[in-house]
Amino acid sequence: MAATTNSFLIGNQTKIPSLKPKSISQSFIHFTKPNTINLTTTTRRRTNSVSIRCASASTAVGSEQRVFNFAAGPAALPENVLLKAQSDLYNWRGSGMSVMEMSHRGKEFLSIIQKAETDLRQLLEIPSEYSVLFLQGGATTQFAALPLNLCKPDDSVDYIVTGSWGDKAFKEAQKYCNPKVIWSGKSEKYTKVPSFDGLEQSTHAKYLHICANETIHGVEFKDYPVVGNPDGVLIADMSSNFCSKPVDVSKFGVIYAGAQKNVGPSGVTIVIIRKDLIGNARDITPVMLDYKIHDENSSLYNTPPCFGIYMCGLVFDDLLEQGGLKEVEKKNQRKAELLYNAIDESRGFFRCPVEKSVRSLMNVPFTLEKSELEAEFIKEAAKEKMVQLKGHRSVGGMRASIYNAMPLAGVEKLVAFMKDFQARHA
Amino acid sequence: MAATTNSFLIGNQTKIPSLKPKSISQSFIHFTKPNTINLTTTTRRRTNSVSIRCASASTAVGSEQRVFNFAAGPAALPENVLLKAQSDLYNWRGSGMSVMEMSHRGKEFLSIIQKAETDLRQLLEIPSEYSVLFLQGGATTQFAALPLNLCKPDDSVDYIVTGSWGDKAFKEAQKYCNPKVIWSGKSEKYTKVPSFDGLEQSTHAKYLHICANETIHGVEFKDYPVVGNPDGVLIADMSSNFCSKPVDVSKFGVIYAGAQKNVGPSGVTIVIIRKDLIGNARDITPVMLDYKIHDENSSLYNTPPCFGIYMCGLVFDDLLEQGGLKEVEKKNQRKAELLYNAIDESRGFFRCPVEKSVRSLMNVPFTLEKSELEAEFIKEAAKEKMVQLKGHRSVGGMRASIYNAMPLAGVEKLVAFMKDFQARHA
Repeated sequence: MAATTNSFLIGNQTKIPSLKPKSISQSFIHFTKPNTINLTTTTRRRTNSVSIRCASASTAVGSEQRVFNFAAGPAALPENVLLKAQSDLYNWRGSGMSVMEMSHRGKEFLSIIQKAETDLRQLLEIPSEYSVLFLQGGATTQFAALPLNLCKPDDSVDYIVTGSWGDKAFKEAQKYCNPKVIWSGKSEKYTKVPSFDGLEQSTHAKYLHICANETIHGVEFKDYPVVGNPDGVLIADMSSNFCSKPVDVSKFGVIYAGAQKNVGPSGVTIVIIRKDLIGNARDITPVMLDYKIHDENSSLYNTPPCFGIYMCGLVFDDLLEQGGLKEVEKKNQRKAELLYNAIDESRGFFRCPVEKSVRSLMNVPFTLEKSELEAEFIKEAAKEKMVQLKGHRSVGGMRASIYNAMPLAGVEKLVAFMKDFQARHA
Repeated sequence: MAATTNSFLIGNQTKIPSLKPKSISQSFIHFTKPNTINLTTTTRRRTNSVSIRCASASTAVGSEQRVFNFAAGPAALPENVLLKAQSDLYNWRGSGMSVMEMSHRGKEFLSIIQKAETDLRQLLEIPSEYSVLFLQGGATTQFAALPLNLCKPDDSVDYIVTGSWGDKAFKEAQKYCNPKVIWSGKSEKYTKVPSFDGLEQSTHAKYLHICANETIHGVEFKDYPVVGNPDGVLIADMSSNFCSKPVDVSKFGVIYAGAQKNVGPSGVTIVIIRKDLIGNARDITPVMLDYKIHDENSSLYNTPPCFGIYMCGLVFDDLLEQGGLKEVEKKNQRKAELLYNAIDESRGFFRCPVEKSVRSLMNVPFTLEKSELEAEFIKEAAKEKMVQLKGHRSVGGMRASIYNAMPLAGVEKLVAFMKDFQARHA
């Protein structure tokens, strides 16, 4: 793994002369250079000693134990984010409490949620006429919240369905308005995105809904359709490619995303919504699905998922430190290219069914020509500490999810394993 | 603080002869006895040394830095639970990943959620004809889910309103059915629970709703009313006294609770529902508010708040280790008695407005006779590391929330401070 550290929990009052803690509240010290630590425990009866040698970064204690986690979500988080969260878990910045114990209305948590929003706004260059909401319930809750907030019962809305998630969003909307699937990739097993020119949009559609990246099928919009109705807006479920690349937010009325792919743990849903779309929820809308309630209360109408929001904030900070989403996109492109090339250059041993121009940078589904070997592939990979490579139960095969937090080294290791596997089984 | 530990993060392969890690995946060792640890860091240039002395439990590093957190929720969590979560955060039990990174359908997380449910069932002796659901959205989401799942638009339902939360639940139900407030404590500033004999329940009420403990007003049901309609059920919002004492679950149709008071971080809502009440959701019910969906999918219809559920599981385990809810209740009674006595014996210097027979074991609101001193009281307490004592913005004064995780020592310290403050200001 590229970045590795060896961590020691140190009492807050402790100073090791050669190692300067960043702040008095820091309770861990991370060794990033080769180091030897001699530990002696002295009890009344006897003295015991042990040395821990951190000979080089590559043999650091933490990373040695880590797997490469290709799960589709919840998914891998950046190592440095996890270590920071671990360091601060018991006592956040000398506050004397964990983030999990903080009142959501106290100054400590307010500083956390406000910084998270500020950093996200910077990352995605979110215009000021958009609100950012930190909610609960996953994208699935938004499937209902969108029509409940934006439509009357007879209103038309359009859905482009490029995979299972877009289909679920459409089905939920049927409860609340008059949705129409104007294009579906189902007959071609969800391997394509339509040409935008030929779309027959409904004249008065309040919105056009897309799933920007289908997690299960690995189909990703590389550009976005323009809504036909001048009063309509584009809405995107970006759960599985949120913050993986720059996005022109001004093209959208609403962007929403579950956090658990690229930006945090499960239990946080982020909604970015143009402010003029807020305030028209129907009277049957549960208060917790009403955007106006959350907007007016800065996501603090009731107790938000505080620790999850804190984790998202750490990830946003990390993405900014990486140089922002342009740099992040470059890394994601490099990883995806490496993996798709390995598939395409396998002379059919590995196959990815998705049309090349819309292959996801995040979720790479693939099958084996000899499908009877797939279980063996997954089992051997797990032995090599590459886990969660099984495809979604609805499509089978394999799927490698390579979100932001998957290091290049993980993809390199997978590709090397694929080549070796092929050599042994071709 | 009663239980204290001094923690060292140790590489997983490390063994300190006198200290036996519980498992090979344990990455922290907690010192519970007096100990001296000598640390030496050796770099190429020089050697530096430092000793850490943990002279006795009361001077342990961790606890010295902790505050007594009287927040109403999110609230204090047990120290040993936080230390365990910290220990396992980066690499859960040798799985090579954090709980936050685990697929919710993988064997690791399934073992976590299943153990959490089993332990909760044991704690509350939940009968087998009840389902346990781990959901999102807080109790506020349940305010809508209950009538949506249990009622038709014209159905009558009854609410006893003993505080702000019961009132909010009633108001939300007005969107979906025909709710009636059959008793309200509002005119007496929410300081009472009604006599059950005199309640005029609606003949055909589908349910009778109570808030078992009003967090803001400190009013707690000590017994429960029987529903008049033989086909109706009793429903209780137990957010702020959940798992604080034994409860006869069989008296209820539904018990629901946000986790962030007694059993975990915010972002998890627990619903305990009699199975025959599941399956009747109205067609306008968002899929995420439909109990049937969550019951059929064992709370895994979409991605649940995995880390929060894991934390709840650690708390359940801790409560069982304490001897179960009878023992927990005894501790809570002792703490509450100490604090209420201090108020009642202050000759009016401190005042609690709640009728003695229904005073909450969890949330203790009080005022100062000289209300101009309240800000000073809160400020001085904070200097003594007793924080979040300010009353809810809607009622003013002070409030000490003394949930399960508040140690007796915290209440003792508060009481001593109150007496000292009175001596200086009487």
